[in-house]
Amino acid sequence: MTNTQVTLIQIDNYGPWTVTPSPRREVDLQTLQSRLYADLSQLIGNEEGYVFFTRFDNMMAVTNGLDVADHELIQESVANRYPVTVSFGIGVDESPVEALSTATEHLQDAGSAQDGGRTEILRGTTLEDRARTDRDVQIAHFDVNDATGKYTDRLNAFDTFIHIEQGYASLMQYMRRANDALSFFVGGDNVIAVTPSLSEAEYRDAIEHVEDTVDVELKVGVGTARTPQAAGMDAKEALETCRHDGTRVEFAD
Amino acid sequence: MTNTQVTLIQIDNYGPWTVTPSPRREVDLQTLQSRLYADLSQLIGNEEGYVFFTRFDNMMAVTNGLDVADHELIQESVANRYPVTVSFGIGVDESPVEALSTATEHLQDAGSAQDGGRTEILRGTTLEDRARTDRDVQIAHFDVNDATGKYTDRLNAFDTFIHIEQGYASLMQYMRRANDALSFFVGGDNVIAVTPSLSEAEYRDAIEHVEDTVDVELKVGVGTARTPQAAGMDAKEALETCRHDGTRVEFAD
Amino acid sequence: MTNTQVTLIQIDNYGPWTVTPSPRREVDLQTLQSRLYADLSQLIGNEEGYVFFTRFDNMMAVTNGLDVADHELIQESVANRYPVTVSFGIGVDESPVEALSTATEHLQDAGSAQDGGRTEILRGTTLEDRARTDRDVQIAHFDVNDATGKYTDRLNAFDTFIHIEQGYASLMQYMRRANDALSFFVGGDNVIAVTPSLSEAEYRDAIEHVEDTVDVELKVGVGTARTPQAAGMDAKEALETCRHDGTRVEFAD
Amino acid sequence: MTNTQVTLIQIDNYGPWTVTPSPRREVDLQTLQSRLYADLSQLIGNEEGYVFFTRFDNMMAVTNGLDVADHELIQESVANRYPVTVSFGIGVDESPVEALSTATEHLQDAGSAQDGGRTEILRGTTLEDRARTDRDVQIAHFDVNDATGKYTDRLNAFDTFIHIEQGYASLMQYMRRANDALSFFVGGDNVIAVTPSLSEAEYRDAIEHVEDTVDVELKVGVGTARTPQAAGMDAKEALETCRHDGTRVEFAD
Repeated sequence: MTNTQVTLIQIDNYGPWTVTPSPRREVDLQTLQSRLYADLSQLIGNEEGYVFFTRFDNMMAVTNGLDVADHELIQESVANRYPVTVSFGIGVDESPVEALSTATEHLQDAGSAQDGGRTEILRGTTLEDRARTDRDVQIAHFDVNDATGKYTDRLNAFDTFIHIEQGYASLMQYMRRANDALSFFVGGDNVIAVTPSLSEAEYRDAIEHVEDTVDVELKVGVGTARTPQAAGMDAKEALETCRHDGTRVEFAD
Repeated sequence: MTNTQVTLIQIDNYGPWTVTPSPRREVDLQTLQSRLYADLSQLIGNEEGYVFFTRFDNMMAVTNGLDVADHELIQESVANRYPVTVSFGIGVDESPVEALSTATEHLQDAGSAQDGGRTEILRGTTLEDRARTDRDVQIAHFDVNDATGKYTDRLNAFDTFIHIEQGYASLMQYMRRANDALSFFVGGDNVIAVTPSLSEAEYRDAIEHVEDTVDVELKVGVGTARTPQAAGMDAKEALETCRHDGTRVEFAD
Repeated sequence: MTNTQVTLIQIDNYGPWTVTPSPRREVDLQTLQSRLYADLSQLIGNEEGYVFFTRFDNMMAVTNGLDVADHELIQESVANRYPVTVSFGIGVDESPVEALSTATEHLQDAGSAQDGGRTEILRGTTLEDRARTDRDVQIAHFDVNDATGKYTDRLNAFDTFIHIEQGYASLMQYMRRANDALSFFVGGDNVIAVTPSLSEAEYRDAIEHVEDTVDVELKVGVGTARTPQAAGMDAKEALETCRHDGTRVEFAD
Repeated sequence: MTNTQVTLIQIDNYGPWTVTPSPRREVDLQTLQSRLYADLSQLIGNEEGYVFFTRFDNMMAVTNGLDVADHELIQESVANRYPVTVSFGIGVDESPVEALSTATEHLQDAGSAQDGGRTEILRGTTLEDRARTDRDVQIAHFDVNDATGKYTDRLNAFDTFIHIEQGYASLMQYMRRANDALSFFVGGDNVIAVTPSLSEAEYRDAIEHVEDTVDVELKVGVGTARTPQAAGMDAKEALETCRHDGTRVEFAD
C-alpha cells in the first residue's frame, strides 16, 4: 500500500505581480517560470523527490523523504534568488489525489492565491521517518509507441503535438477518475503518473481507454520504492524493457 | 494580412540520448529541458521573437525579425553550453500552420528526429527585411475568467489543472482547425495563439466553442505588429482592458 | 584611435540586502551573483558587448554598440527575474579608464551604492551610431605560457592559483598605470584587457614587467574592431597564433 | 582541532575544448563557467558544503558531510547537463592546504588536466561519519572596513577594485604561508578563508599584515562547526557583531 507525500507549490500572488504596474515582458515571465521549475527540480530532486511543472504558477511535487525543515530551506532559497516567493501545502495519503487535496486545503485555508498578504505559507505534516516503507511511492512512466515514426517524422509539429496532447488529456482524466492518480506531461511523448498500488490489469485498462478514445497507443513501466526518485528510475528501466520486448506494461522487479 | 515566420526547434536525437547508456536521472532531464527553453526564450526574445515550450524536445517559435545568421548564432550558443544540439526549420506564410508545415518539412527532409547523424540542421528562408510590414504578426492572449476564484481557491490543484487543460485542449484544436492558428499554453491559465488576421467574430466563436464544449470561460486580447514581442505586448494590454471592462474580446488600437 | 564605451553595473544596495534581516545563506548569494553575471553576459553579449564579473556586485562592461534603450531593456529584464535591481553608469572615451571614471561618477552623483532609495539609475551618453568606427575597441587577450605544465599539473591547486593571481595583480596594475587599460581575470589563466590603441612595444613591456616582478610568463593576442565581441574574437585568434608559433605578442590582421 | 575535507574540482580537458575547433565565443564560455559554478554551489551547498570559484576551470570546495556517493551524483548531474565533465580529487587533513595537496595529487596522478582521455576521475577518501566532530571546519569571513565609503563611492570602480584585489592578494598569501589556510574572494569586499583552528592573535596578525603591506583595513568573523555551512553562517554572524561593535576579530560563541 502506498503512502504518498504530496507538496503543492504555489507562487505567491503571481497573477497580479505579472501585470503590476503594467504587463511584464512575456519572455522574462517564461524565463522566470522555467528557471524556478528547474531550480525546484534540483532542490527537491537532491532529496530524491520529483516536481512537475503543471501550470508553473502551481506546481505539484512528490516529496517522500523531505521533512518540514527541508521545505523551509527551499522556501528560503527561492526567496533569496527570485523576485517572487512560494507557499507550500503538504498532504500524505494512500491516494495521491487525497494527499493533494489535503495539501491544497492547507493553502486555501491560509487565503487566496492572489492575496498579497498571504506569503511563504508552509502547512501540513510530513511522513515520520519510522512510518516510511519501501512501498510508499508508485511511479508509472508512460510513453507513446513509436511517436517519432508515427508522428514527429510524418506530421507537422503542431499536429503531432495535438496527438500527444490528446493522449495526455485522456490519460490524466482517466487515471484521476478511475485510480486516484496524478499524471503529468514531462516533455517529448512522456507522462509520469504518481499512483496508488495499481495492478497490471488497471494499467492495461488505462492504456486501452486512451487507445479507444483518442487512438494513441501507450506503453508503461512501473516502479515502487521508498522515494520518488528510486520508484521513477525503476519505472524508466521497466519502460526500457517494454521497448526491447515489445510489451505494453512492465513492473520493475 | 499576416506574414508569420515560424521556426521549429528540435533537440537532435534527444530520445535516444536520454536513455544512453541507461536512463538518465529525470530531475536532470527536467532541468536541462526547462533551462534550454529559458535560454531560447532569452536568445530569441532579445530579437523580439517568442518561443513556446510545447513538447520541450520540439519547441515552436515565431521569429519575425530574426534572419538566418541570428539562427546560426543561437545554434552555436546552445552547442557551447549544452550536452545536446538543436536543429532549426524555418517557414513563412500568411497562415501560421502553413508556415510551421514548411518548417517541419525542412527538418523531416533532412532525416529523422532520432537519426544520430542529423545534427544542427538549419534550413528554410527568412523574411526579407523589405518585405516586412507592421501587420505581419497577430498574437492573441487568452486567459480563463476568474480562474483563481472559480478553480484555484476552490478545487484541489489537480482538478483545477484538469479544467485549465481541457480549456486549452479545446481551444488549441478549434483554433488550428477553424483558423490555421497555433495556440500554446504558457502557464497559469494563459494561452498565447499565433494567428492569421482574425476578426472579432472569429475570436468570439472560438471562446463560445470552448465554453460550449468544456464549460470554461475565456477572454482574449489581440495585438498585431511587426514583431512577435510588440504584438504580444499589445495583446497583453488589450487583455487588461477586458479585465477592467468585463469584456470578452479586445483588440489593441 | 579607440573610442571605448564602458558601462559600470552596480547591484543596488546589495551589501545591506545580503544581511537583511540576518545574513543570507552564502550558497544562495554565490548562486545569485554568478547567475546574474551569466545573464548579463548573454544580454550584453547578444549585442556584441563584453561584461566582466570583477567584484560581482560591481561589474564592468564594454558596450560599444548598445544604446540607452538597450541598457533600459536589460535593467527591466533583471528586475523581472531577480530579487535585486541594477544601476548603470555609462562613459565614452579614448581611454578606457577615463570612460570608466565618467561612468562611475554618474552613479556616485546619483547617491551611495548603499543608499536604499537609489535604484535603477541609468545615466550617461552612448556613442552615436555615426561616430562609430572600425577601430573603436581594442581587446588584448593574455594567458600564461604553459600554465598546465608548469603549475596545474605540478603544484597544489592553491599554489597554482597564487601564481595566476600574482600574474593578474601585477598585470592589472601595470596596464592601468602605464596604459590606462582595464584588465580582467576571466578564469583559467586568462586575462582580457580593454585598452587604448597600444603598440607591440607597449604589450611587450607589460609582459616583461610581469615576468620581472612576479616571474609569470605571459603571451598576448590583440584585436581591434567596431565591437567588443569582434575585437575579442580577433584577439583570441591572434593568441592561437602565439601558441602555434611560440611568439609572445600577436596582432590580428 | 579541525579536520577539513577538501575537494578539488577540475573541468576535464577544458583549455583545449575552449579552442576546438576554433576559439569559442567568450560570452558563452563565461556563461558556461559561471553557471557551472552556480550549480555546484547549489549541489554541494544542499549538503552543507561550500565551493569557491577560484579559477572556474579549477574550483575548490570544503565538503565535510559529503561522501563518495554524493560526489558521484554531482559528477553525473554535471555530465547530464553540460557539454563538459568534471573530475574530483578529495583530501582530508587538519591543515586545509595539506588536504588540498592530497586532493590535487589524486588528480595529477590520474593524468594531466589537459589529457583528453582523463575524464570524470573521482579519487580520495572522505571522512567517515563516526570520525566527524563539531570542530571539524573553521571558516573565517573577512571584509573591508567601510569599503563603500572609502572606495566604491569615491574612486573610479577599477581603482576601487585594485584596492580590494590587493587586500585579497596580500591576505591569501599570508594566510597560506603563515597558517596553512585557503582564502577565497567571494565578491564585493568579502573573503572567505578555510582555516585550521586559529587563535584571535593569529587573525589579528593577518589583519595587521594586510594593513601594513597594502593599507587595506579588514575585519573578520570566525565560526567553527561540523559542516562548512554551519561554520560559515556562524562566521557571518560574528562579522555582523564586528560591524555593530566596531571590533576587528569576533569568534562565534
